[in-house]
Amino acid sequence: MITPVEHAPKLRARRLRLHTQHEPVVVMRTDCHVCRAEGLSARSQVLLTAGDRQVQATLFQIDSDLIGLDEAALSEAAWSLLGVVEGDLIEVSHPPTLDSLSSVRRRIYGNRLGEAAMAGIVRDVVAGRYTDVHLAAFLTASAAVPLDADETAYLTKAMIEAGDRLTWDAPVVVDKHSVGGLPGNRTTPIVVAIVAAHGLTMPKTSSRAITSPAGTADTMETLTNVDLDLATMRRVVEAEGACLAWGGAVRLSPADDIFIRIERALDIDTEGQLIASVLSKKIATGSTHVVIDIPVGPTAKVRSEDAAVALAARLTETATRFGLTLVCRQSNGDQPVGRGIGPALEAWDVLAVLQTADDAPEDLRRRACALAGAALELGGAVPKGDGEAAAAATLEDGRAWTKFQRICEAQGGLKTPPRAPLQQVLTAPRAGRIVHINNRKIARLAKLSGAPDSKAAGLTMEVRLGHEVAAGQPLVTVHAQTGGELDYALDYAARNLDMIETEA
Amino acid sequence: MITPVEHAPKLRARRLRLHTQHEPVVVMRTDCHVCRAEGLSARSQVLLTAGDRQVQATLFQIDSDLIGLDEAALSEAAWSLLGVVEGDLIEVSHPPTLDSLSSVRRRIYGNRLGEAAMAGIVRDVVAGRYTDVHLAAFLTASAAVPLDADETAYLTKAMIEAGDRLTWDAPVVVDKHSVGGLPGNRTTPIVVAIVAAHGLTMPKTSSRAITSPAGTADTMETLTNVDLDLATMRRVVEAEGACLAWGGAVRLSPADDIFIRIERALDIDTEGQLIASVLSKKIATGSTHVVIDIPVGPTAKVRSEDAAVALAARLTETATRFGLTLVCRQSNGDQPVGRGIGPALEAWDVLAVLQTADDAPEDLRRRACALAGAALELGGAVPKGDGEAAAAATLEDGRAWTKFQRICEAQGGLKTPPRAPLQQVLTAPRAGRIVHINNRKIARLAKLSGAPDSKAAGLTMEVRLGHEVAAGQPLVTVHAQTGGELDYALDYAARNLDMIETEA
Repeated sequence: MITPVEHAPKLRARRLRLHTQHEPVVVMRTDCHVCRAEGLSARSQVLLTAGDRQVQATLFQIDSDLIGLDEAALSEAAWSLLGVVEGDLIEVSHPPTLDSLSSVRRRIYGNRLGEAAMAGIVRDVVAGRYTDVHLAAFLTASAAVPLDADETAYLTKAMIEAGDRLTWDAPVVVDKHSVGGLPGNRTTPIVVAIVAAHGLTMPKTSSRAITSPAGTADTMETLTNVDLDLATMRRVVEAEGACLAWGGAVRLSPADDIFIRIERALDIDTEGQLIASVLSKKIATGSTHVVIDIPVGPTAKVRSEDAAVALAARLTETATRFGLTLVCRQSNGDQPVGRGIGPALEAWDVLAVLQTADDAPEDLRRRACALAGAALELGGAVPKGDGEAAAAATLEDGRAWTKFQRICEAQGGLKTPPRAPLQQVLTAPRAGRIVHINNRKIARLAKLSGAPDSKAAGLTMEVRLGHEVAAGQPLVTVHAQTGGELDYALDYAARNLDMIETEA
Repeated sequence: MITPVEHAPKLRARRLRLHTQHEPVVVMRTDCHVCRAEGLSARSQVLLTAGDRQVQATLFQIDSDLIGLDEAALSEAAWSLLGVVEGDLIEVSHPPTLDSLSSVRRRIYGNRLGEAAMAGIVRDVVAGRYTDVHLAAFLTASAAVPLDADETAYLTKAMIEAGDRLTWDAPVVVDKHSVGGLPGNRTTPIVVAIVAAHGLTMPKTSSRAITSPAGTADTMETLTNVDLDLATMRRVVEAEGACLAWGGAVRLSPADDIFIRIERALDIDTEGQLIASVLSKKIATGSTHVVIDIPVGPTAKVRSEDAAVALAARLTETATRFGLTLVCRQSNGDQPVGRGIGPALEAWDVLAVLQTADDAPEDLRRRACALAGAALELGGAVPKGDGEAAAAATLEDGRAWTKFQRICEAQGGLKTPPRAPLQQVLTAPRAGRIVHINNRKIARLAKLSGAPDSKAAGLTMEVRLGHEVAAGQPLVTVHAQTGGELDYALDYAARNLDMIETEA
């Protein structure tokens, strides 16, 4: 949507090479003619127009000759969204009134949103017209008074329609998702390899971490290129039946990554947003059959069987509205899965399972087989009841590992995940049996060590529930890429010794 | 609270003269040793320490030699908070974990907050440790599931304790507040002049606009200096018995202005926040007796008598917990008050009433006398029942105008409010009687014309409810300081002709 701007004052584009994460920023002189004519002040939202492209940016003003009087100096986000070259003319104007904000306000005050209102919000979000304050308010309002079934479906639909939508020649397109909250639960790369080895189509796109130390996209990025455009993704899937791509690199439900950035800052992840996030991605990817893993445990995202049943019901109900066949499986969520927690450390676990290494984490292998088995059955590749055994056989005879390597090669080559230069072992203060592991504190510790932004950072778990440990025996190894991050993690660990509880 | 930072890497302070509104920003080279050692990325929050001062800032990174490798380039907000000079050494480190954010998360998920949790949130807010995302989440959560009586009192207490607290020698200290939502309802300067002329103590501090086109501080700023430090405020009150200061210039409930900035961006203003905002300011100012004006009307902030009674009850209940004597008065909120809407335009109305000009707006005069009368009675200056007449007499004989001039002189001199260079009259599309005026749309129009940031911008109302108009007769005059703002307001007016409804 291009709003025509008549007689808007113009400035010359200048690339500032300023990194502001996703936020488009423009820096202009306080005394430039545009600021004066338009009555602009610092942190105003402004509409930048260059040719047929527009972007809404946050204005910062400067009183110094670092920037010329006739210049609009752009952050990298604004520069790439506008697609300008040095010196291009940019029109600067007030952004149009955001009518969808009145829907957000109505939602804050407890009113339900209809289909058109939700579509309007998501359209403006994807167009970059919402500031962080607006985004946080929308997400908080839909957490404080949770989205109902209709709102969840409307949000899902709006998120699908605000992006691209893939179609595949295969009649059955399989997908898989874990609800998360369980550190190290990195089954997806293994499931994809097994399912594709059976000839099913599985064009997998994954998110980066929301509130966890790693998402599948973060882990896969340490193994191969995940930043695939649509054409590359299609070529990989046509050749290998599957891919392992970052969802944000294609425009599938582009609102999702914007919401995720704010949810990550707030460390919240609510049911309605979760359902819309998962299903909008699956439907936009063209999936027809989806297996959902719901880990349940006292410190997992889902804390009781009842809650898991309720979530499964809401997921299934919403999926049905879109003609999607969906099956949910509960799994044990009492402790982290595998050994590694963090992008590269989880990649090493995935490789160990795929390569049937002697020290491969057995819990990760079994979970992946259960999910891959369910997908094989749901997709009609094996008879009902045979799925798990078929999946295990595909790992054991090396077909899954071969398929995984072929997928990575097709995406640009298999890489060796990095190792962190700094490691520090945390030891048991006293002898005893491990009776409780707090997933949330373990995840927090891994994040403080630098994961997921520092790819090699994170933890390796040296114990599991039920293990007997001696005083001074290793519990967890912290991996960090910088001393600052290591100190930060160790400081947290010292204040949270209850994250792994022992009983004499 | 200074967190000791050992061996933190240091950079040289550089003043960037970058205006970012309130947000402390630091710009560092992507390849500088601090970013690399600490694993910092764009938009990380960082803790800057210089001597005994600390500030939490948003990090932007730059790939260019505009900034030196050893420099930390500071926005004006960061520069003044840190109190550094060019070249001073600044330590850069990760900010401490914000424990109070877990309280915000618990509140988002519907749990009530206790006294300690609320105090922790407000302390971190005042210390500048909350990003806009965190602030928006806290305010939205306490709007979506409104603050209860206990939470409101805890928030009020936390806001008082996070700032300074004044004490006065007088046994009775009077204050006054209008709940707002009624454009042009600028009674405060008149009430203060009348009450002080009767010898009562009224050290008035006012906010800037939240969601309206002008707050009392915005209007008073066009008449005199309102940016008074504590010593000046005390000197003015000792000399004249009253002042008319901006609350944000002293550290009275400093959280309030931070919350207000976000509430303004969201255009929300909820009951609990309103009560905590009003009462924390009053109590921190040392007031003992307060009169509250609650305008009621279909498009005012409070829309029904029932809602006004409920708000009055909650205000009174919370005030009582703090030993404050409070009386609420409902007033008619069907239409804007006076003629002007916008900082300077309202100042002209105030001057007209104080100077008993022939064309002084009668509704503004009557409202001010009613409130001043209530304050005179509450403060014991006149017998019960005599207040309004005493107030009117004080205006008529010039004592109020004299007192007002003396207060302004004591604050730095009486100024002439500015006039906007651009004016455009909006006329009646057809003849008829004015039957409805939409306060919200009128306020929105005034804001689009540039108020309150552009002091002279806003509207003058040319009609009132019940007036008969001919087609083409003026309804409203839009005042703007720039062509961009005028166009923007006129565009909105053209799309919202129903803001003033006529009936044939």
